[in-house]
Amino acid sequence: MSENYNAMWTDLGLDLEAHDMLLNVLGQAYQDIYLAQENRPEGMGYFDFVMSEVHGLRIKELMDEKAIGRKIIGSYCVFVPEEIVLAANATLVGLCSGADFATEDVERLLPRNTCALIKSSFGFKVGKVCPYLESADMIVGENTCDGKKKSYETLGGMVDNLYVMDLPQVKSENGKALLKAEYQRFKAAVEDLTGVAVTAGSLKTAIQTVNAKRAALHRLFTLRRADPAPISGLDALLANQVFFYDNPERFTDSVNKICDELEKRIESKQGVFAEKTPRILVSGCPQAVPNWKLPMIVETAGAVIVGEESCVGERGTRNLTDESGETVEEMIDAIVDRYFMVDCAIFTPNPDRLAHIEQMVADYRADGVIHYGLQFCQPYLMESIPVETALEEKQIPCLRIETDYSMEDVGQLKTRVEAFVEQLR
Amino acid sequence: MSENYNAMWTDLGLDLEAHDMLLNVLGQAYQDIYLAQENRPEGMGYFDFVMSEVHGLRIKELMDEKAIGRKIIGSYCVFVPEEIVLAANATLVGLCSGADFATEDVERLLPRNTCALIKSSFGFKVGKVCPYLESADMIVGENTCDGKKKSYETLGGMVDNLYVMDLPQVKSENGKALLKAEYQRFKAAVEDLTGVAVTAGSLKTAIQTVNAKRAALHRLFTLRRADPAPISGLDALLANQVFFYDNPERFTDSVNKICDELEKRIESKQGVFAEKTPRILVSGCPQAVPNWKLPMIVETAGAVIVGEESCVGERGTRNLTDESGETVEEMIDAIVDRYFMVDCAIFTPNPDRLAHIEQMVADYRADGVIHYGLQFCQPYLMESIPVETALEEKQIPCLRIETDYSMEDVGQLKTRVEAFVEQLR
Ligand code: SF4
Ligand code: SF4
Ligand code: SF4
Ligand code: SF4
Repeated sequence: MSENYNAMWTDLGLDLEAHDMLLNVLGQAYQDIYLAQENRPEGMGYFDFVMSEVHGLRIKELMDEKAIGRKIIGSYCVFVPEEIVLAANATLVGLCSGADFATEDVERLLPRNTCALIKSSFGFKVGKVCPYLESADMIVGENTCDGKKKSYETLGGMVDNLYVMDLPQVKSENGKALLKAEYQRFKAAVEDLTGVAVTAGSLKTAIQTVNAKRAALHRLFTLRRADPAPISGLDALLANQVFFYDNPERFTDSVNKICDELEKRIESKQGVFAEKTPRILVSGCPQAVPNWKLPMIVETAGAVIVGEESCVGERGTRNLTDESGETVEEMIDAIVDRYFMVDCAIFTPNPDRLAHIEQMVADYRADGVIHYGLQFCQPYLMESIPVETALEEKQIPCLRIETDYSMEDVGQLKTRVEAFVEQLR
Repeated sequence: MSENYNAMWTDLGLDLEAHDMLLNVLGQAYQDIYLAQENRPEGMGYFDFVMSEVHGLRIKELMDEKAIGRKIIGSYCVFVPEEIVLAANATLVGLCSGADFATEDVERLLPRNTCALIKSSFGFKVGKVCPYLESADMIVGENTCDGKKKSYETLGGMVDNLYVMDLPQVKSENGKALLKAEYQRFKAAVEDLTGVAVTAGSLKTAIQTVNAKRAALHRLFTLRRADPAPISGLDALLANQVFFYDNPERFTDSVNKICDELEKRIESKQGVFAEKTPRILVSGCPQAVPNWKLPMIVETAGAVIVGEESCVGERGTRNLTDESGETVEEMIDAIVDRYFMVDCAIFTPNPDRLAHIEQMVADYRADGVIHYGLQFCQPYLMESIPVETALEEKQIPCLRIETDYSMEDVGQLKTRVEAFVEQLR
């Protein structure tokens, strides 16, 4: 950190000692995994800076926003519509966490057989190490998987300001009506929190802002079609992760700047790995900061990741919201239409996800798919079996991985991934 | 079996060899667990007979019904309304299964970390050993837990006739509207299957028939308040299990007959165990036939089970449907009202279940609660922690058990249950 933020962290109620420990681990991991990469685009310097200041400068910015009356809203799912949050003069930050923390305390609150993502979120709360969580004026839970749905009942007793959004399980007319009703209820709750009514003007601007973030990532995704790959999967994942924390406009600019650079790289056939390096599509559970385990394994095993079919990736950002609405009502409808397309495995059935995986394999010229499932994540683990079967029927090699955040299985995973990559050559 | 049913089983497509193996295991377990009990009510003779003919005479009856054009509908959840099924001239049978079967094959279709109930249902299908499943003209799945919701996508490819019912996750107005819409859609589907329209008359009769089954169980439940307990938890669980298979009228009569007998026992202070035997309430996941593992452990550890807060138990049967409706519409509303009260852990939040547990502890004068959770069942395992905390705050001892259908942990469970029972003396 370039500045001393101890006072700010203390004000937020963080456990300074535990927090220091976390930052050290995070910094070391970043050094070992990210900075150890070769041929990185220069534009990644921005993301290196963001990560080095993820609990510092960015939190200071949020505190400055709060000082002038803006509200901060935290979320655990891409179904929480940032458009509505921005339009009501609040800032949305992602709260999903990608590292184990305070596991023993967490396992007094949650069953051991809970996915690492949920356990981690709880660990960051009970360990008092997440300045995003502590600075949030409202925390939004959602009824997605059983694990999250039921754990919010416990989380509700640990934070003052939990708002729970209901979600459909089926992409039916009823389901869409429920999503719309819930987005309207959410809009009212955010307006109530901020004291600022959403107007047609503010909502239109918000839609454009969020679309611009997504469009910048689309540009990045498209550039990853090139061979040699102009950017590593690790770096692209980082951009997808920072999407959830950064100031939207600055994020958009920074991604576009990298894209300018990558275009030049592609022209000069410059890549992060040699041409014809086996190309992998990763599909499955979200990978939240600092969960870089799988891409680290894949990209040190002689392959490059060219796409993420994930909520921290294309599933989360691929669709834009139609910008043509003129009234708040029309724009809410457009937002509902946009989010209703998110093909999370919590929906049944969920054929669009398989179609999207196949589309991504073709678009990114992937040689194989690694299905990434967090242990105990029933929706994605259940779906991984028919997904694998369907892909293999189309002669697309698929490796199903089930893991957590611990480092215990890294050796075993390396062996499996290496064997898979060998098969793709 | 008193008759040779091989021809019938072959016609149903069962794997006779595997099925024989299953029946042998089942018969032996019944002998060891049920028939080894002392002081059983004579009326249990009926249930002994039912169990000895569970794949024989009862299936023959269903085949006879089918021969005269009646349809059989199978279900995995107490949210499938038997009233509607009966009113459209069909018979409802439960398909949940309580024994591991064909586990290796199942684990090619489902993640290993799937609850035993779901794995067992799949095992009975892939192993071709369940005559109920094979005789069903329609199989109803429902969007309850993630495990079931997602596994039905795979089951759909294994049976010809899967119908999936959507369910709400929240007890809101929207949630109730969804349940009603889904019951109406289900009614139409069943009418379509049977070719018989539900009328006010047939629905009223069906409501009365199902209420009578439930009322007979209520009578049995009430008699279990006595000390000494007039019936074992094992035997009462069996009645709760047979509820899902038997001919409704015969079931009602048989339970009432046992109740007549138990009333006399209570008068003469005759019990299955001595007075002041520690009394246990079991709460949690359903225990399907032949899953008698926990009550067997508890009742050989010096305690008696006096109630089941479970879908195979009071959660499933406690509320009656209002019988005063005159039109189909009014009666459907009454059915929706009735089922909407079922306090399954898939709902969030689910405060009624805790209230019901506390009520049952008082009603049945239980000394302690054993929370029964199937491994990997996120809804009930998640809920078990706040339930335990709340009970202990009220000085109600609680033991949380997480297990599956295997016998490997019986020794360890016995030790834990014995220690718990000791603490209740
Ligand atoms: S995977 Fe599903 S539950 Fe998780 S963030 Fe994405 S949409 Fe939400
Ligand atoms: S990884 Fe799976 S279980 Fe975990 S929060 Fe996401 S959807 Fe739920
Ligand atoms: S526990 Fe829930 S999902 Fe299972 S049968 Fe009962 S209501 Fe249905
Ligand atoms: S025991 Fe739990 S996980 Fe298994 S089917 Fe029932 S609710 Fe689902």
